[in-house]
Amino acid sequence: MSRTENLLVIGGVAGGMSAASSFKRARPDAKVTVLEKDGHISYGACSLPYYIADVVKDIQDLIGFTPETAMKERGIDVKIHHEATKIDPKAKIVSVTDLQNNRTLTLPYDKLVIATGGVPIIPPFGGIALKNIFTIRNINDGLAIKKFIDEKAPKQAVIVGGGYIGMEMAESLHSRGLKATVIEKMDRVLGTMDAEIAQIVEKKLNEMNVSLQKETSVESFEGNGKVEKVVTDKGAFPADFVILAVGVRPNTDLAAQAGITMGARGAIGINAHMCTNIPDIYAAGDCAETIHLVTGGKTYIPLGSTANKQGRVAGENAGGKETTFEGVVGTAVTKIFNLEVARTGLTALDAEREKLDFFSTTIKNRSRASAYPAGKPITITLIAEQQTGRLLGAQMAGEEGVAHRIDTLATALYHGAGLEDVARLDLAYAPPFATVWDPILIAANVALKKLRAKG
Amino acid sequence: MSRTENLLVIGGVAGGMSAASSFKRARPDAKVTVLEKDGHISYGACSLPYYIADVVKDIQDLIGFTPETAMKERGIDVKIHHEATKIDPKAKIVSVTDLQNNRTLTLPYDKLVIATGGVPIIPPFGGIALKNIFTIRNINDGLAIKKFIDEKAPKQAVIVGGGYIGMEMAESLHSRGLKATVIEKMDRVLGTMDAEIAQIVEKKLNEMNVSLQKETSVESFEGNGKVEKVVTDKGAFPADFVILAVGVRPNTDLAAQAGITMGARGAIGINAHMCTNIPDIYAAGDCAETIHLVTGGKTYIPLGSTANKQGRVAGENAGGKETTFEGVVGTAVTKIFNLEVARTGLTALDAEREKLDFFSTTIKNRSRASAYPAGKPITITLIAEQQTGRLLGAQMAGEEGVAHRIDTLATALYHGAGLEDVARLDLAYAPPFATVWDPILIAANVALKKLRAKG
Repeated sequence: MSRTENLLVIGGVAGGMSAASSFKRARPDAKVTVLEKDGHISYGACSLPYYIADVVKDIQDLIGFTPETAMKERGIDVKIHHEATKIDPKAKIVSVTDLQNNRTLTLPYDKLVIATGGVPIIPPFGGIALKNIFTIRNINDGLAIKKFIDEKAPKQAVIVGGGYIGMEMAESLHSRGLKATVIEKMDRVLGTMDAEIAQIVEKKLNEMNVSLQKETSVESFEGNGKVEKVVTDKGAFPADFVILAVGVRPNTDLAAQAGITMGARGAIGINAHMCTNIPDIYAAGDCAETIHLVTGGKTYIPLGSTANKQGRVAGENAGGKETTFEGVVGTAVTKIFNLEVARTGLTALDAEREKLDFFSTTIKNRSRASAYPAGKPITITLIAEQQTGRLLGAQMAGEEGVAHRIDTLATALYHGAGLEDVARLDLAYAPPFATVWDPILIAANVALKKLRAKG
Repeated sequence: MSRTENLLVIGGVAGGMSAASSFKRARPDAKVTVLEKDGHISYGACSLPYYIADVVKDIQDLIGFTPETAMKERGIDVKIHHEATKIDPKAKIVSVTDLQNNRTLTLPYDKLVIATGGVPIIPPFGGIALKNIFTIRNINDGLAIKKFIDEKAPKQAVIVGGGYIGMEMAESLHSRGLKATVIEKMDRVLGTMDAEIAQIVEKKLNEMNVSLQKETSVESFEGNGKVEKVVTDKGAFPADFVILAVGVRPNTDLAAQAGITMGARGAIGINAHMCTNIPDIYAAGDCAETIHLVTGGKTYIPLGSTANKQGRVAGENAGGKETTFEGVVGTAVTKIFNLEVARTGLTALDAEREKLDFFSTTIKNRSRASAYPAGKPITITLIAEQQTGRLLGAQMAGEEGVAHRIDTLATALYHGAGLEDVARLDLAYAPPFATVWDPILIAANVALKKLRAKG
């Protein structure tokens, strides 16, 4: 680049702020502007259920830095309450509405990063406009739900959707003393996770008196101004409020209007440098697709950890460095009451959709040596390719030793490991932390036996 | 094999019993005999410090199975109190002393597995024959130490050696209300672990009022029949008893007498099938060397987890299956009070000895998202090759999230990963378990910056 080019970033949370920061590190002399339509930037939305649960006391704890510290410590000009309304890729300008002063402005850019994130899916249920139906996505959502619980002292809630967020909110509301009912369309919680793992979570919900209604479809919300019940194909459920947690879709209207090509599941199409199809426009985070290293194809898995990595690579490339984001293997973990539940790679349902010839193995073991007290059950499912023994995915659930143990298999997947490789891993053993054959090794050995018996 | 061949195994703990069991699985019709000179088989010696601490209440909890259940459930004939005294590889017989009946016998074999384990190193200190100087290696050691503490109510102990066992025994004795002094020859605890990690452990010892005397050499033990003090080059330390924990050497006398070639650090030389240089004789466990996958060379790292794997492969190959044990990457973990301390691969001192051109990076981070309560500090050291960025090793210490996190790096080492690979791993994130950039990713990114700055 011959002159100092400026960077404009649309979106000030994980992907956007990472892009702004890495660009600034690469080109300290450049002007970097971030537009954020809300009032907060750089926050950890994953902690919102814990804020609502009162485990995190202060909303400020969720915030990495403010617009003021972004300027002071990183030299990044953040404009909050500024909504980008149009991208003109030919003129290289972005139209912006200053929401507080109700005026419009246009900002030029040399390089543009779109980090508009995801938006909660809001199905067109009857009564969707009733009061006290909340989504849980950004800080404003979190503040609104907590304020509602604190001020209105509701007794019962319905959570629509039994995915990660639905499960985390079930724990969150339970810890506030609320009666929670989870309504889930599928035959299990946690989406495509395998039945063996989902059942452990369902048992825990039952233990904690969270009501779970599976294979149940919401039809409408009813109430007088505010929601009072959730009507489903299996009857109606009373609710002082509703948490709508049926998923996230990429927020791509702005990109689409600019002529940017969409990719997997309607997310912005990108290459490994986070470039869109339009020169000088990058995308990162929950608005963008990503490469799945197990299938080799593109996918859409909106997660804060990925958003940060993509944002960094987008900023580096916009700043002239040729770095790449190679993709994900689909790793995720969540805490559901005292359970750790984690996955990486493909589930059986994922593998079916990919038309792979696979088999799956589930083992139960202990988290500690049998002699060492207070060990807990741990369940591991491995999915592997039938012909080659290649590891395709893994899931785990248990009260301890799950959240980081999954990373061993995520690392194996990154390297394209087979079951033989997994069985050969030199994993750490001491009685307080594992059995002498680590549960992962046991799972791999059982899977290998199965593979050889079939082969 | 034309007829049903018999297997004889010398040693009935981890390596020996694994070999016997896997051979029997491969050849259910074969006769399998295990000779064990002591009275117990198949026990988890790693749990002995917890038995002495009264965390494990019953010594039986350490025992996987008894000679009776070995016969009943696995069809393995275990002869306890039977000591092998000579191997005749030409005649394919082993001379045995029945210690209880004080008679000798000879047993023929078709295939022989030597799993004689390791023995505690006992330096020729003056007064070494005094009473109440204990080693801690097998069940009898554990029973003797616990009995001594229970019956004699000692007040103070000296632990000679600040390695894993020394540290675990410091915690164990402290939990019994004893004043413990650790005497260590080197300038740090935990052997070759890097100073940054060793210091965290040393601080913890200090907090717990365990006295640590570094760069101190024991000269002799003094006392009237039983030990009363430990004399060192830095003065004398009073002791009601002594735990000698200066390391383990391979127990190879029997193998050496039979003409078997020794390998790394005096351990029995083996190939990937666990074959010694003499046909039909295999070795496994703490008496045998192993391949180090990071250096590619042979090494000696006696650990129960490795012994089990080697034993299984020895038994499979003796039973006619061609399986291999590829080696280790040097992974280990220990609990020291409320600290988890772990390593994998090479330390800086190891890398120096290997004459590798390396650099090291240490980072400090939190075990949980900053918003989520009760996170703990976590320290990670990465060792990488200067020119290539290849990961050579890692060490970690912290109160949570260490014991299994090390396995991610052990898996990376198994696959020959570079720092770039580590930085690209898709690791599980949720606020209760990690920061959004996992501590491993932060460490890899800091190391990469260092690599590029130098490169």
